[in-house]
Amino acid sequence: MSSQNLVTVTPDKDNDEIAIVTMQRPPVNSLNLELLQALSKTLDELSTSDFRAMVLTSASPTVFSAGLDIMEMYKPDLKRAEQFWSTLQDVWLKLFESNLITAAAINGHAPAGGCLLAMSCEYRAMVSGKYSIGLNETALGIVAPRWFMDCMLNTISQREAEIALTTGKLFSVEEALKVGLIDETAKDKEDAINKCLGFIEKFESIPPLPRSMTKQKFRANGVQWLKANKQADIDEFVHFLKFPQVQQSLEMYIHMLKSKQNKSE
Amino acid sequence: MSSQNLVTVTPDKDNDEIAIVTMQRPPVNSLNLELLQALSKTLDELSTSDFRAMVLTSASPTVFSAGLDIMEMYKPDLKRAEQFWSTLQDVWLKLFESNLITAAAINGHAPAGGCLLAMSCEYRAMVSGKYSIGLNETALGIVAPRWFMDCMLNTISQREAEIALTTGKLFSVEEALKVGLIDETAKDKEDAINKCLGFIEKFESIPPLPRSMTKQKFRANGVQWLKANKQADIDEFVHFLKFPQVQQSLEMYIHMLKSKQNKSE
Amino acid sequence: MSSQNLVTVTPDKDNDEIAIVTMQRPPVNSLNLELLQALSKTLDELSTSDFRAMVLTSASPTVFSAGLDIMEMYKPDLKRAEQFWSTLQDVWLKLFESNLITAAAINGHAPAGGCLLAMSCEYRAMVSGKYSIGLNETALGIVAPRWFMDCMLNTISQREAEIALTTGKLFSVEEALKVGLIDETAKDKEDAINKCLGFIEKFESIPPLPRSMTKQKFRANGVQWLKANKQADIDEFVHFLKFPQVQQSLEMYIHMLKSKQNKSE
Repeated sequence: MSSQNLVTVTPDKDNDEIAIVTMQRPPVNSLNLELLQALSKTLDELSTSDFRAMVLTSASPTVFSAGLDIMEMYKPDLKRAEQFWSTLQDVWLKLFESNLITAAAINGHAPAGGCLLAMSCEYRAMVSGKYSIGLNETALGIVAPRWFMDCMLNTISQREAEIALTTGKLFSVEEALKVGLIDETAKDKEDAINKCLGFIEKFESIPPLPRSMTKQKFRANGVQWLKANKQADIDEFVHFLKFPQVQQSLEMYIHMLKSKQNKSE
Repeated sequence: MSSQNLVTVTPDKDNDEIAIVTMQRPPVNSLNLELLQALSKTLDELSTSDFRAMVLTSASPTVFSAGLDIMEMYKPDLKRAEQFWSTLQDVWLKLFESNLITAAAINGHAPAGGCLLAMSCEYRAMVSGKYSIGLNETALGIVAPRWFMDCMLNTISQREAEIALTTGKLFSVEEALKVGLIDETAKDKEDAINKCLGFIEKFESIPPLPRSMTKQKFRANGVQWLKANKQADIDEFVHFLKFPQVQQSLEMYIHMLKSKQNKSE
Repeated sequence: MSSQNLVTVTPDKDNDEIAIVTMQRPPVNSLNLELLQALSKTLDELSTSDFRAMVLTSASPTVFSAGLDIMEMYKPDLKRAEQFWSTLQDVWLKLFESNLITAAAINGHAPAGGCLLAMSCEYRAMVSGKYSIGLNETALGIVAPRWFMDCMLNTISQREAEIALTTGKLFSVEEALKVGLIDETAKDKEDAINKCLGFIEKFESIPPLPRSMTKQKFRANGVQWLKANKQADIDEFVHFLKFPQVQQSLEMYIHMLKSKQNKSE
């Protein structure tokens, strides 16, 4: 599958100024280098297009995105690991600061990097059910970088965020709604997209330039830090991957995932 | 009407240490240069007076303050525009950091600059009814400066503030109470003033110096930024006024206001 | 009583990786230099021990800690006052940033410095009853330093914190729960400790290193400020003690406490 096909962009059927952006890297939209590159390219194209809004969603029926692909971190090629992290930084900056109105139709699980993508949007509607969302990095033996935290603090309170990140909490849909990590629940993917469209409608009479400038001012703190510390943040990530106990944690997690898969087959 | 009469200061009938500060620039307390200068002078006088608290309110029966006078921004004299913005900065700094206990009895609409004045106080009681309050700058095609945002973040959460400012939301009284943008609702102006007096009473046994020092420490972040960037902030405002699309937005808004007035005559 | 005995460390009866840390300076655990030194030493020992969690509590049946010992501030020996404040800074830094999981079983009143100790932990269970908790410094005529505020902002919202600190509010247990200053109420001390153990259990499968790194990243802002301004913060405290009106406030407070004691005898 070419990089191009990992992300599709389709105009909404009723409003061609709204792009439905769908991640489709089966089975669970794990964010590997290629999917991140496709997202990065898509965000570049959208920023110079006539689209004024986007809804981010997934082609999987049960997973929005499973987060960073662990295979990019387990026994890594360090050069590729650098590129991987740098591309993740770019995707976040482009999505978090996007000139477009951004909303996430979360049609399934959204752990770790999946939660980050959802939180980087301006609105979140999540399909009810046995799905979960959260920054569960500590449970995997890794540390969410500072800008993941800043991104979460744009959405929920300091108190809730500290407990969520230290415990590696995956919120149920109801818990996520209660704490403000998502804005609305939805019956299914179509309903989640419709709720995102409802949010986008609020900006119908708002001029785009003051809108995006206002959004970017609110989000400047986290963004400025990453822009000023891009290489240091990459170095910290790569350095962390070299810890034996981090590799051990990842290995245990991979075994656990495999045994789950075997059971469900 | 002389500058002096645009703002009146009256001691509370039961407690002459509390100043009732009333804005009276008919019809809607639009904040033009002269009203801002009168507010600035009043705040200076209060800071060296024997008053230990103030309640800010309006002489209009339906409007607390309609916000910045658009005529100061539409086809502006740039020199006056600079002075206008600089005086607004001063009023905000003096009110936000005031040594006095400050409360707003919001007896009517409080959009944009009207909301800023209310948020700069330490307490807000708002008269129930079809009134609204919020920073709706984007709806007018302009961008609230960073210190408007800092001021709002002193009152409501980052999440609520981002949505409110990007959508240019005007909150109903009930919505404002729910989100914490106001502290109490009131039956009428007298009741709103009484609720402000109730807040002021909480400080009866609190020594004034530690009180004001504590308040100023909490408010230091936003204040320090503006003090360090006063001229840049003025320049940005004046620069923004020169954008043709900003002038067009203001013109449309003025036409809309005029057609509303004609209809109601 | 030797410094050692002012704080005891006992392993939890069911889990020897959890330390029950008990303050016991009768009658009310006032934080004088010696109690702070004992706490500081205890925190050092815990950080290099095999304990992975601690529950902070009090030997008094009605007071968690009455806060800073006013006798360290009233007519102070300035050299000792410096050491006193410096030790308080150290205790806060060690507790707030501790590698251990930290929880407070608040079995009685926790004003001022008592509230600070509780807020520095990651979780708070408080015994129901006529107890109170809060930073009531202004009521005593003093100003909570910036890092007390940062510590409170780690727990409750900016809006709630400003009102609480300027009014010197002591929250009832119910009010503290509502605003998020405590996480749970408890029937008695044993129940409060059990609820803390319940919180600690959440980290059973979370690797300790990513956990503590994540916690420390969240708490870095307030910590960095104090580390960069340690001496200036000491100087400000000592300078403040020299104000005649501060000494007068403290004197009045001491008289008030004594007359209370006499009445209750």
